[in-house]
Amino acid sequence: MATQGQVITCKAAVAWEPNKPLVIEDVQVAPPQAGEVRVKILYTALCHTDAYTWGGKDPEGLFPCILGHEAAGIVESVGEGVTDVQAGDHVIPCYQAECGECKFCKSGKTNLCGKVRAATGVGVMMSDRQSRFSINGKPIYHFMGTSTFSQYTVVHDVSVAKIDPKAPLEKVCLLGCGVPTGLGAVWNTAKVEAGSIVAIFGLGTVGLAVAEGAKTAGASRIIGIDIDSKKFDTAKNFGVTEFVNPKDHEKPIQQVIVDLTDGGVDYSFECIGNVSVMRAALECCHKGWGTSVIVGVAASGQEISTRPFQLVTGRVWKGTAFGGFKSRSQVPWLVEKYLKKEIKVDEYITHTLTLGEINKAFDLMHEGGCLRCVLSTEA
Amino acid sequence: MATQGQVITCKAAVAWEPNKPLVIEDVQVAPPQAGEVRVKILYTALCHTDAYTWGGKDPEGLFPCILGHEAAGIVESVGEGVTDVQAGDHVIPCYQAECGECKFCKSGKTNLCGKVRAATGVGVMMSDRQSRFSINGKPIYHFMGTSTFSQYTVVHDVSVAKIDPKAPLEKVCLLGCGVPTGLGAVWNTAKVEAGSIVAIFGLGTVGLAVAEGAKTAGASRIIGIDIDSKKFDTAKNFGVTEFVNPKDHEKPIQQVIVDLTDGGVDYSFECIGNVSVMRAALECCHKGWGTSVIVGVAASGQEISTRPFQLVTGRVWKGTAFGGFKSRSQVPWLVEKYLKKEIKVDEYITHTLTLGEINKAFDLMHEGGCLRCVLSTEA
Repeated sequence: MATQGQVITCKAAVAWEPNKPLVIEDVQVAPPQAGEVRVKILYTALCHTDAYTWGGKDPEGLFPCILGHEAAGIVESVGEGVTDVQAGDHVIPCYQAECGECKFCKSGKTNLCGKVRAATGVGVMMSDRQSRFSINGKPIYHFMGTSTFSQYTVVHDVSVAKIDPKAPLEKVCLLGCGVPTGLGAVWNTAKVEAGSIVAIFGLGTVGLAVAEGAKTAGASRIIGIDIDSKKFDTAKNFGVTEFVNPKDHEKPIQQVIVDLTDGGVDYSFECIGNVSVMRAALECCHKGWGTSVIVGVAASGQEISTRPFQLVTGRVWKGTAFGGFKSRSQVPWLVEKYLKKEIKVDEYITHTLTLGEINKAFDLMHEGGCLRCVLSTEA
Repeated sequence: MATQGQVITCKAAVAWEPNKPLVIEDVQVAPPQAGEVRVKILYTALCHTDAYTWGGKDPEGLFPCILGHEAAGIVESVGEGVTDVQAGDHVIPCYQAECGECKFCKSGKTNLCGKVRAATGVGVMMSDRQSRFSINGKPIYHFMGTSTFSQYTVVHDVSVAKIDPKAPLEKVCLLGCGVPTGLGAVWNTAKVEAGSIVAIFGLGTVGLAVAEGAKTAGASRIIGIDIDSKKFDTAKNFGVTEFVNPKDHEKPIQQVIVDLTDGGVDYSFECIGNVSVMRAALECCHKGWGTSVIVGVAASGQEISTRPFQLVTGRVWKGTAFGGFKSRSQVPWLVEKYLKKEIKVDEYITHTLTLGEINKAFDLMHEGGCLRCVLSTEA
């Protein structure tokens, strides 16, 4: 590789400060150090967490930074000691690492690997606590350990999943965040059984992936709840069987759902990030066994509340991150499921643009008709 | 039976109004109707739920009533169609019914039978929505479907567990509420595994039963938290291995526990009924898998809160009622375990009095040295 061991100068979308349009800059990307992997990003999608940090709502957000965490690419080179991937491998960067060695990975109870969190949480790499990105010597922070809004990025080796090279990268980039989050919330966190009644609050990409997961699990009724009735037609294709718009009802939405379901749903999923909706999602669950899973990310500082009686009478309140999937082990498996047509991916892609059009892509995210916008990083 | 089919006049402790001392009255107890059982109560204990309703804090509380729900006795007579028990059977009244036929019982997921809840929630019997208690023709409400502060009571057949007649009723009356609640919170609701680290907030009867349940389950550390350090000596006998008094620390108690346990406990149990402590109990759980179970009953209208991030990062918030035990099926099994010395019961009984001394017994409940006070109903 001509570039191996060299600094690469490439295009990246830099967030210089919160809420200001991203700027396409020439960025220097340092070679990967020990335990690191430099990836040529070919396609990246946008997710609401990018918009959340970009909007200045994330108290951990650091600027200037390169956002982006839902992407696919090809390994350009690897640092010392990296054996799981090599140059030329097709990969999906994983904001949720999997080291296999830490207390979390070894527990068998969670996917929340802790190995590189101390670094990725503050925008740097573990080995030297420095960034691999710079512009004329000025460091630019990493984001979520992935920073995929760049033609090249450097990630920890525990944060990259090697996938089948037959998979179209312009599609499977979506398996880096939203789709697995929804599917896994159903399969791993809630463990929905056949015949269950399911409620989904919020019919964006994650909510639709929950619907698909619930359908696959054999749910008998899948109730989609959204304040935008236009979403129902699309939602049907993902498995939603009934639609409720809270605006059509005077009663609290939890009561509407309880009335519709003879006492409440077996499982509910909050896919918005609104703490009031999280409460409604819990309280629309059936007494005795209903389980509610928080999938959406609430604004910093906001709190959820309910009467403890809701839990004492048998409801369970849970949450999920990356759908409980172990990233390096299971993202390749999800790619295989996609290739076997067992899960949808293409159907979430409503727009395709280039990295240079990224600000337009952020605008699109806030429009009802947009699920996922995939950016090509070609110059 | 000389009394079968007859109204029985007997002594009962009547709560005429909230917060006023109970009055021992001559009460008329009507014969059991179809599906009902009249029980001669021999021993009854007091539980905090009695004090809660008596104190006027229960918005569903109805007066005048006969309180009491943790007791044991002998069937005096049965109404039409009752086949599961007969006169002479030793029984424990069960405030949590088990019919085996309703949606809840059939679900296999909960112990919260719904069959007679509509009546027991409003202090009457199902068949005619009337009380079987009266004083000179004035009806006195039932309480929790049990009303055990009386020499005789009438309960629904789905609310009475037939037990081994070899069991000493003056002991096993405790298996009607507090002890099963604690044991079951561990065994049924949390499903604590061997090697787990457990935190228990509140070292009253229920908290100590949680400790015993955790010890039986093989927990490696059982941390008792209470603001009364005098409770630690007793708690050791039930399995508590470490004691933390929040008053000894300036940091929030959840932080103290997290620091003590390298990241948090595997399971926590709130056995007080304080919503702030419920939050602490959740937040002292380990990221990724810690499960908190609400066992205590909070005052009406109070709410629990936390940041949703607590759940999204893998903690689970649950509650339990009667420890998840199916009452008629499992109370007899608990009695057998007691007879085989596999669970403690005698050790919770710190005081014995008579029904006539019931107001003194209520006073004792608020003293740190009292776990359970058992009242003999003999005249």
